[in-house]
Amino acid sequence: MACVAHSVPVVGMVGAGQLAAMTCQAAIGLGVGFRVLAGSPADSAALVSAGARVGDYRSLDDLRDFAAGCDVLTFDHEHVPGEHAAALERGGVRVRPAAAALRFAQDKLAMRQRLAGLGIPCPRFAPVRETAEVERFADGAWPVVLKAVRGGYDGRGVWVCGSAAEAAAVLAHGLPLIAEEHVAFERELAVLAARSPHGQGAVYPVVQTLQRDGICREVVAPAPGLAPGRAADAQRLALRIAAELQVTGLLAVEMFATPDGLLVNELAMRPHNCGHWTIEGARTSQFEQHLRAVLDLPLGSPALAAPVTVMANVLGGGDPDVYGRYVHVMAADPAVKVHMYGKAPRPGRKIGHVTVTGDDPDALLDRARRAASYLRWGKEDGG
Amino acid sequence: MACVAHSVPVVGMVGAGQLAAMTCQAAIGLGVGFRVLAGSPADSAALVSAGARVGDYRSLDDLRDFAAGCDVLTFDHEHVPGEHAAALERGGVRVRPAAAALRFAQDKLAMRQRLAGLGIPCPRFAPVRETAEVERFADGAWPVVLKAVRGGYDGRGVWVCGSAAEAAAVLAHGLPLIAEEHVAFERELAVLAARSPHGQGAVYPVVQTLQRDGICREVVAPAPGLAPGRAADAQRLALRIAAELQVTGLLAVEMFATPDGLLVNELAMRPHNCGHWTIEGARTSQFEQHLRAVLDLPLGSPALAAPVTVMANVLGGGDPDVYGRYVHVMAADPAVKVHMYGKAPRPGRKIGHVTVTGDDPDALLDRARRAASYLRWGKEDGG
Repeated sequence: MACVAHSVPVVGMVGAGQLAAMTCQAAIGLGVGFRVLAGSPADSAALVSAGARVGDYRSLDDLRDFAAGCDVLTFDHEHVPGEHAAALERGGVRVRPAAAALRFAQDKLAMRQRLAGLGIPCPRFAPVRETAEVERFADGAWPVVLKAVRGGYDGRGVWVCGSAAEAAAVLAHGLPLIAEEHVAFERELAVLAARSPHGQGAVYPVVQTLQRDGICREVVAPAPGLAPGRAADAQRLALRIAAELQVTGLLAVEMFATPDGLLVNELAMRPHNCGHWTIEGARTSQFEQHLRAVLDLPLGSPALAAPVTVMANVLGGGDPDVYGRYVHVMAADPAVKVHMYGKAPRPGRKIGHVTVTGDDPDALLDRARRAASYLRWGKEDGG
Repeated sequence: MACVAHSVPVVGMVGAGQLAAMTCQAAIGLGVGFRVLAGSPADSAALVSAGARVGDYRSLDDLRDFAAGCDVLTFDHEHVPGEHAAALERGGVRVRPAAAALRFAQDKLAMRQRLAGLGIPCPRFAPVRETAEVERFADGAWPVVLKAVRGGYDGRGVWVCGSAAEAAAVLAHGLPLIAEEHVAFERELAVLAARSPHGQGAVYPVVQTLQRDGICREVVAPAPGLAPGRAADAQRLALRIAAELQVTGLLAVEMFATPDGLLVNELAMRPHNCGHWTIEGARTSQFEQHLRAVLDLPLGSPALAAPVTVMANVLGGGDPDVYGRYVHVMAADPAVKVHMYGKAPRPGRKIGHVTVTGDDPDALLDRARRAASYLRWGKEDGG
C-alpha cells in the first residue's frame, strides 16, 4: 500500500498522459488513492499528481514495483505488453481490464476475429502480408484501409491506400497488417460503456465524433438527430461487447454509421477522447466511472447533465505561448471550459480540449471551435 | 518558478486542507501550476498534489521559501499572520487577497468597523473586555453572541451566551472579543463573489445555508423562494464589499435574512463551504474561479448548470471505515456525487461532502442528507 491516509484503496495507472491527469482529478474527488507510472517526470499526470513513479511500462520489473504499491492496476494507454499484464495477474495483481480482455484493444486482428465470432457487424477484413493479398482483398475497389495489428510506426497505425503501389509502401515496413474495406459511412459515432468486475454495466449516450486528418477534432453529445432505436442499438452493442470480452473499466466503441446499419471500427479499454465531454456533460465523468469500475464500486449515473455538450480538441500550433491566449478565450466566452494538459505544444499534438454545454449543437460547435482555434493559433482558423 | 512544463504560472496556496485539494483539481483542469504549503504530509491536499511543501504558515521564512517557487500566493485559510502577508508583499510577492484586504477576514472587529463605515447592514456590535460591558451591551436582552476578534480556542470562535455568567466564562480566556446581537433571522443566506486584480467582478446565485450546532450542514442553490429583488440586493452587496475591500480572489459573504432585510454575518476570502455546490451546479466552480481571479484571468460564468443543486457535508462519525460505505451510497443513488477529503474521520469533523442536482429542493435535500448520513454512520440518522 502506498502512503495514504486511512483505509482507502490505491489505483495505479500505467501511463501518465492527459487521461491519467484527468483520472487524478476524479480520484481526488472520490477520495481514493491514485498513483501513476510515468515515462518521464514531464508527463501530464506526473506534473500534477502526488507520488508519481517514473518507470518503463515495457519493463516487467518496473510494472511489478509499481503494482506493489497499488490495490488495482489500470492503464491510460494500451501499450503494456500483454505477457506482462498476464504475468502480473499470475502474481496476484488485480489488473483491470485483465490481460485477456486488454488483448482485444491491443491486437486489431484478434479484435476483428473475436467480434466476427460474436456476429457483431464490422468492416470486411483480412490479414495481409503481401501486395497481392491486398489486391485480392480490394478486388478493384480502392481505397483499402491497412491497419497495423499492433502499434504502428511514426505514430501512425492506419493508412488509407488508394492503389496497390501505396499498399506496397506500407507493407514494406514489415509490420503485421490487416486490410479493411474503406467504409463509406454517413458519420462516425462512439459509445462509451463501463463494466465492473461484479458485472454491472453502464452506458453513456451515443455521441458523434468529427475527425479531420485521422484525428478526433470534435465530439457532440448526444449525437444529433440519431433515431432512438438506433441509439439504443449502439448502446446495446457496446454493453454486449463489454460483457462478452469481460472488460473491467471503460470500453470505448467507435462505430461507423452506414445506410445499412452500424459497423464497429475501433475499441479502447480506458478513458477515451470521445468521453471528455462527460466531465461537464454527464452526471458521472468517464474518469470517475473508470475508477468506480476498476474498484468494483457501483457505477455512476451516465445521464446527461445538459441537453447538448460539445467538446473540441486543442491541437498544438506554432506558438508555444498557449497560456498567453487564455485571456482572449476566457474573455470572449466565460462559459467555455478550458482543459489544458501541461504538454509542450507541438504542431498537431493534442494539448488540451474545450467543452461547452447548452441546447443548440451548431451554436455550441461554433463556440467550441472558436475557443479551440484561438488556443491553437490566436486566430480563428489558422491551422 | 517551480518546475513545471512550459510557461504557465504557478499558484501557491498556503494551507493544504480540502479547499486546497479541490483547488488542485481545478488547477489540473486549467493547466496551471499549483503548489501547496502543508502543515503535514497527511493534509488533504498534500496527499494528492504534486510537489507539496511542508512548512509552517506562521513562519515568515517558510512562507518566503514557498513563495519563491510561485508566481502568485493565495490561501486556503485566514490564519497567516497579517504582518507576514504584508512583509511578503513588500518583498515583491503577489499576495492575493492582499494583506490589506485579508485583514477584514482575519479581524472581526476591523471587519465590523469597516462595513459599518460603508453603511452596510450588520448586527449591532461592540468590542468587549469585561462582563459589565457585555451586560451593558445586552441591556437585558439575552442571548448575546461573543466572537473572538481573531482565531479562538478549542477550535471555537463564537459563543452564544444566555447570561452574564456564561459571558464571564468566555471572557475568562482573555481573548479579544466582540459582542454582537443575537439575530432572530428567518434563514441564513450566503453569496459568493469573485474579484480580479483588474477589477472584474462575478457573483454566484444566492444560496441558503442550513447550520446545526454552529456547523454548516447543507447548502441549497439557489436559495428557494427568494424574491428576485432580494437576491439581487444580496449579490450587489457582495460585489460592493469585494470592491470596497479590494478583495482579489473569492469573497464569501454569509448573511442573515431578517424581516427587516439582510445583515452581514461573516466574510471569508477563499473558496468556502457555501460554494462547494458550484463544482457540479455552476458553469465555473468556485475553485476554478478563485484561480482565475488570483491569476487575473477573465472570470468564468457563475451561471447555474442545473435548476437546483444541494450540497450536504459529511461529518466524521464513530466508524473510521468510510470507504466501506461507498458501495451502499453509490448503489442507492448513482447520481449522487461523493467528494471525500482523505481526512481521518473524527466525530464532527468535515471529512467530505455530497452533491445532487435536479429540480426539487426538498427531494434533493432528502437524497443529499441520506447519502451524507450513510457515509457518516452507515444508517439514516445516527448522529
